[in-house]
Amino acid sequence: MTGATVTDLYEVTMALAYLHEGLTARATFSLFVRALPPDRGFLVAAGLVDVLDHLDGFAVDGDDVADFAAALGRPVAELAPLRGLRFTGEVRAVPEGRIVLAGEPLLEVTAPLPQAQLVETLLLNQVVHQTALASKAARCVLAAGGRPVIDFSLRRTHGVEAGMHAARAGAIVGFAGTSNVAAAVAYGLPASGTMAHSFVQAFPDESTAFAAFARTAPGPVTLLVDTYDTDEGVRRATRVLRVLPADRAIGIRLDSGDLAALATRARRVLDDAGLHRARIVASGGLDEYAIDALQAAAAPIDVYAVGTKVGTSADVPYLDAAYKLVECAGRSVMKLSAGKMTLPGAKQVHRGPGCTDVLALRDEDAPPGTEPLLETVMRDGRRCVPRLPDDVAVEAARRRFRADLAELPPVLRAIHRPATLRPAVSPALQAVTDEVRNRLDRQTRCTLTLRH
Amino acid sequence: MTGATVTDLYEVTMALAYLHEGLTARATFSLFVRALPPDRGFLVAAGLVDVLDHLDGFAVDGDDVADFAAALGRPVAELAPLRGLRFTGEVRAVPEGRIVLAGEPLLEVTAPLPQAQLVETLLLNQVVHQTALASKAARCVLAAGGRPVIDFSLRRTHGVEAGMHAARAGAIVGFAGTSNVAAAVAYGLPASGTMAHSFVQAFPDESTAFAAFARTAPGPVTLLVDTYDTDEGVRRATRVLRVLPADRAIGIRLDSGDLAALATRARRVLDDAGLHRARIVASGGLDEYAIDALQAAAAPIDVYAVGTKVGTSADVPYLDAAYKLVECAGRSVMKLSAGKMTLPGAKQVHRGPGCTDVLALRDEDAPPGTEPLLETVMRDGRRCVPRLPDDVAVEAARRRFRADLAELPPVLRAIHRPATLRPAVSPALQAVTDEVRNRLDRQTRCTLTLRH
Repeated sequence: MTGATVTDLYEVTMALAYLHEGLTARATFSLFVRALPPDRGFLVAAGLVDVLDHLDGFAVDGDDVADFAAALGRPVAELAPLRGLRFTGEVRAVPEGRIVLAGEPLLEVTAPLPQAQLVETLLLNQVVHQTALASKAARCVLAAGGRPVIDFSLRRTHGVEAGMHAARAGAIVGFAGTSNVAAAVAYGLPASGTMAHSFVQAFPDESTAFAAFARTAPGPVTLLVDTYDTDEGVRRATRVLRVLPADRAIGIRLDSGDLAALATRARRVLDDAGLHRARIVASGGLDEYAIDALQAAAAPIDVYAVGTKVGTSADVPYLDAAYKLVECAGRSVMKLSAGKMTLPGAKQVHRGPGCTDVLALRDEDAPPGTEPLLETVMRDGRRCVPRLPDDVAVEAARRRFRADLAELPPVLRAIHRPATLRPAVSPALQAVTDEVRNRLDRQTRCTLTLRH
Repeated sequence: MTGATVTDLYEVTMALAYLHEGLTARATFSLFVRALPPDRGFLVAAGLVDVLDHLDGFAVDGDDVADFAAALGRPVAELAPLRGLRFTGEVRAVPEGRIVLAGEPLLEVTAPLPQAQLVETLLLNQVVHQTALASKAARCVLAAGGRPVIDFSLRRTHGVEAGMHAARAGAIVGFAGTSNVAAAVAYGLPASGTMAHSFVQAFPDESTAFAAFARTAPGPVTLLVDTYDTDEGVRRATRVLRVLPADRAIGIRLDSGDLAALATRARRVLDDAGLHRARIVASGGLDEYAIDALQAAAAPIDVYAVGTKVGTSADVPYLDAAYKLVECAGRSVMKLSAGKMTLPGAKQVHRGPGCTDVLALRDEDAPPGTEPLLETVMRDGRRCVPRLPDDVAVEAARRRFRADLAELPPVLRAIHRPATLRPAVSPALQAVTDEVRNRLDRQTRCTLTLRH
């Protein structure tokens, strides 16, 4: 669901006021994450594709105006000035999959003020939560130290759309597959799955269930062994798996209990039966913290399946993001609210080796040896980068993430309390910031003086 | 987005296996929340409408089969047995808006095993997160002690669908409005909104911005006062508001800083100007904990606007829910996994006064003075309750919540560490549980004995 009514009401009210007041000059808004939570050392940009799909063709039609009027309880005529409003602006953004630090714009919109305002809600909605999911998923990949991680989150995400985004975010950071069939098809991902406890329970006993699964499963035979007694389940699974042809992909899944201990015992049973090729899949409330602990314990787990906690980014289900006006009719602006100060002006991030980033004004010269993070992706309301097929877009993002990850300093990779790196602020940006702050301080002081 | 491919792959694999093995007898699955997190005393059922929309007309068509085959990397012919599978089962569920305790089924599906299995993922996806959102929102209403609470969450929810669900969940528990225009229109809710910091910044100074807003706003004039210096912003707002006609709805919004102190000072300034009718709206990271603290401080706040933390249910972004097979081909089944034991059999919850609930087998007689929580909402794959218009459904759920809330014991209402009430287990359910457990224990022991 998209469309102009997917917005906070105040965007509508403000856009209308701008039109009435003739404030239609170009303005720039910057979308960024103010500060990272304690257990995030970096962000992975995601959500841009949905933003461009929304903006490319964004238009307020008669039905939208009628809905605005209904929502406000006002006559349609009062909202009529918004009718026909299209997005004709420019978008500069960090491509999906790139690693971003706190305070760096993920996206900047430059457009006539009413347009840039009206699209705020959806841009935040899409970019922030997809970036949160990708950043969480990336930590799982780091924790797993090269072992495959698989997305099992669809049943616990905040709706189907969020489930699609979770699978996609995982794919961007290198997950080996997803349980989500729709996402696998849409994004060209390997689909993955084992069996549920209900499957085991649907048969008279566990061994019968395992045998039936081995007989009928179109894909790998991965048997869930913890429905009753896990160690016993492993032995029963082994008896079924050992008679399968040697070219059949086989494994077991552990979904509860002390996964490290159970995996160690299971590995021994499987190996004793000559089933060295059988993979042990672990699941059950896993996230990067649990994976890290299992890796530290050298648990013989071959595949980590993550669900609930990763698909909801459970420890940090939101990011402290903002879409702030930074330039308006050629004037740099900023906000002074307690703890929420913003830096004025349209910006660029210049990335040096090892994420040594410089946050600069948009038109500053790039420092030597750096590359710009923000690219122009939309001009005059139209995409100026191709709309890639969904699977190709994911693959491109995955390549970007892999490249950036190679440059990510080890201190930012820590699972527990990673360091927080912030970009350096260029002298020119600092000068503009000081200048705008002084101007605002003078205004405030002046008003205070007049009152006393 | 719905459809048969919105599923975990293993549902497909298992459904296929059931068909191959002739396991098509009726099975009952129970969807319930195992245990509540520390800061939840109760749940508010939500999501049923989406479940019924999904099941009513659920069918696996040729495209779905092709997608299943593609996801598995297998020939279409192997998945062909699933083609034409429809949902022909029965659904019994707790109506939306009702208060539910841990361990009580929110929903039970009785259908031929492959069907009941195949719909699992979407049922969990919709019911669990919507119930989580409604339960979080209900706590905000409790904390606010009668003052209106408004949903401002769309920009931070996990996608647009989640934003719609958050607005709807709030409406069910009595929120006074939402900023989400699409949700306001869809569910017949009051739309609400003020202005953003960008609005203030778009004008040469704060007073000019306030005057412009007062001149152009189609609805209430609620001025955001914390863009620069909050106390000064309040004084500037007051000068604009005092010249508006007495029948104009007016107010200010505080979005940062020490809200209790700022509200107290703002109230004084507004009252000194004779603006007793001006409402103070507070926002900025609010949730039930913050509202509770502001209420305890007797902050003169008239409206609480909640966003990020409520729309993502930030402290508890998921619930420990399960969709478990409890009966299969007339046989009661259960699971013994470490810490995840389930109770066998199709069930009913009999509610006595003050949430004194009894969890019983489905067909037991109701204890005197109780009413059943689960109602039959679908029979033979068709709704047997009317599909209400969206706004009417929300209103009906709101009435149910209000009635249940009146009966909710005070110990469950606590914002911090509420008590946890669990339903009593009926003697008949206990007897079946013991019997099934003994049967399973005997099987396990028997197998263990044979090995030694």
